[in-house]
Amino acid sequence: MKKVTMLDIANKAGVSKATVSMVLNKRDGNISEETKSKVMALAKEMNYIPNHLARSLSTKKTNTIGIVLPDITNPFFASIARAIEDGASYLGYNVIFCNTDNEIKKEEKYIKVLISKLVDGVIFIAGGESCTSIKMLRNNNVPFVLVDRYIDSYKEDYGVYCLNKSGVIQGIDYLYDKGKRNIAFVKGPDTLEISNQRLQGYKCAMSQYGIYNENLIFKGSFNIEGGMDSTKILLESKEKIDAIFYSNDLMALGGIKVLLRNGIRIPQDISIIGFDNIHISQFIEPELTTIAQPIYEMGKESCKLLIDIINNKRRLSKQVYFETQLIVRSTTL
Amino acid sequence: MKKVTMLDIANKAGVSKATVSMVLNKRDGNISEETKSKVMALAKEMNYIPNHLARSLSTKKTNTIGIVLPDITNPFFASIARAIEDGASYLGYNVIFCNTDNEIKKEEKYIKVLISKLVDGVIFIAGGESCTSIKMLRNNNVPFVLVDRYIDSYKEDYGVYCLNKSGVIQGIDYLYDKGKRNIAFVKGPDTLEISNQRLQGYKCAMSQYGIYNENLIFKGSFNIEGGMDSTKILLESKEKIDAIFYSNDLMALGGIKVLLRNGIRIPQDISIIGFDNIHISQFIEPELTTIAQPIYEMGKESCKLLIDIINNKRRLSKQVYFETQLIVRSTTL
Repeated sequence: MKKVTMLDIANKAGVSKATVSMVLNKRDGNISEETKSKVMALAKEMNYIPNHLARSLSTKKTNTIGIVLPDITNPFFASIARAIEDGASYLGYNVIFCNTDNEIKKEEKYIKVLISKLVDGVIFIAGGESCTSIKMLRNNNVPFVLVDRYIDSYKEDYGVYCLNKSGVIQGIDYLYDKGKRNIAFVKGPDTLEISNQRLQGYKCAMSQYGIYNENLIFKGSFNIEGGMDSTKILLESKEKIDAIFYSNDLMALGGIKVLLRNGIRIPQDISIIGFDNIHISQFIEPELTTIAQPIYEMGKESCKLLIDIINNKRRLSKQVYFETQLIVRSTTL
Repeated sequence: MKKVTMLDIANKAGVSKATVSMVLNKRDGNISEETKSKVMALAKEMNYIPNHLARSLSTKKTNTIGIVLPDITNPFFASIARAIEDGASYLGYNVIFCNTDNEIKKEEKYIKVLISKLVDGVIFIAGGESCTSIKMLRNNNVPFVLVDRYIDSYKEDYGVYCLNKSGVIQGIDYLYDKGKRNIAFVKGPDTLEISNQRLQGYKCAMSQYGIYNENLIFKGSFNIEGGMDSTKILLESKEKIDAIFYSNDLMALGGIKVLLRNGIRIPQDISIIGFDNIHISQFIEPELTTIAQPIYEMGKESCKLLIDIINNKRRLSKQVYFETQLIVRSTTL
């Protein structure tokens, strides 16, 4: 790649490279106004852009951060990524994004290459315990912030999370108030601590009301297809069910589809509640009642936290926990 | 940031930095097996990762590319970005992503910083004519590929597009065959050439059938809200309408919502057709009939094309055009 260089400008202006450098770096006290304006005009005309990489090598600062996330096509992660990039851009940083599909090996490959490129920090939505990745970041003193995916072993590290357990309790309380007693729960993958936290919320609230029945727990992956598959199994069960709590909105979307196709009326026959409040949830019919995470805020905060750490700013707390909010729409009655 | 360095390993191993360098760079002919294995073990234990940036500065190759796109939370762009990142990662590149909201000033800011960071190339989904951005890329000899957003002035540049006009004709032909004669069209923003290409397809096909009526053309932005707003206006029109062609799926989603809320049956009263075939379109109820773009393939191809140009591989053609495909689902009858 042949970028426009100071030498290119010098040749065209008929002055030395040193003169161009002095003008462009504003150390131009001894240079005539005529030369200054000629150099500035040429730099603009030729679209001269300084080489940031050379500076990075001496300052050890690239103004680039990485986001390691499961899948950018999942609307939840796309919103987080957008918030992070907005914040980063505002603060003068760029963002490299990496899709891991929750695969530990892919995470390690990405973390390694991000470190080799001297990113200033990493925002990490981990697909599991991810020990090797975390160890690489720590040993190389790369600041990192965990987001969304809480990991017990790293609870002392910087992190931005939502209160998953209390969020589900909020939802069960609401369904109970509405008279629902046979509330099924579709949990996420066991490998993710957030799945377990949400399940704990369900178990806790249902037990407290004396209506816990373990046969009402189903399982799926955190996407539309996972919601469809688990709902097909749920429909074959002999249990009476008057509400279904899906562990995220994408699952709920898939579930609603299967229920409607089976002639089940929502919410008259079965009430539905999701978790996340992704953008599409308010636009489907019927509109989805859900436990909202402040997704954009969480992304924004994680970016702010990371850049504060990079710049050695003092932070009151290493972890930020966001509260959820019940959003009542048309899938519950 | 204090990365683990060769010096750290040397100090711990009790050998010189030169020795460590020779071992890690496999120029270790004169070094004892014992030292070699000690150094290798320490490098692994300490998670030593080579500094890629220093190499980049001498080779002028960063193995990083940029994607400049309107908004990563739009599922169409998220799919393209995912395909690009998958391809890039496979070929040893990382991807910096930039959200422009179709704002020319933001594009210019991003293009400038990408060039300053010596990215090897840029994939550009432009928000308009974007002349200054393109000029900066050209003047600095940064390879770039335009994707999705065709621009007449740059039709000779590298680009990956779909055949928008013929795609819409496909859809009108299908609706006509189904007996529809009062087909409304919701066009996208005038600033985008793809909006105009799709509108041309509509005008062309409707005129050919002798059923063109300019009062049936409405306008909206390329998102759910745009579909809702334009449909509200459409419902107030006095024209008889038996089908609506939305210029993209997100618009159609918003439109369907407004129609259903107004008691209009889909497809019995009005048939609906979209454009794109984003993932969610097959999961909403009723499932959306649409003109599919091969979104993932287009992303993959644009990445391959860019990396071919970066590596000076010969390509038969600078532009790649993908055909669309009619996907019939439940919103048409």
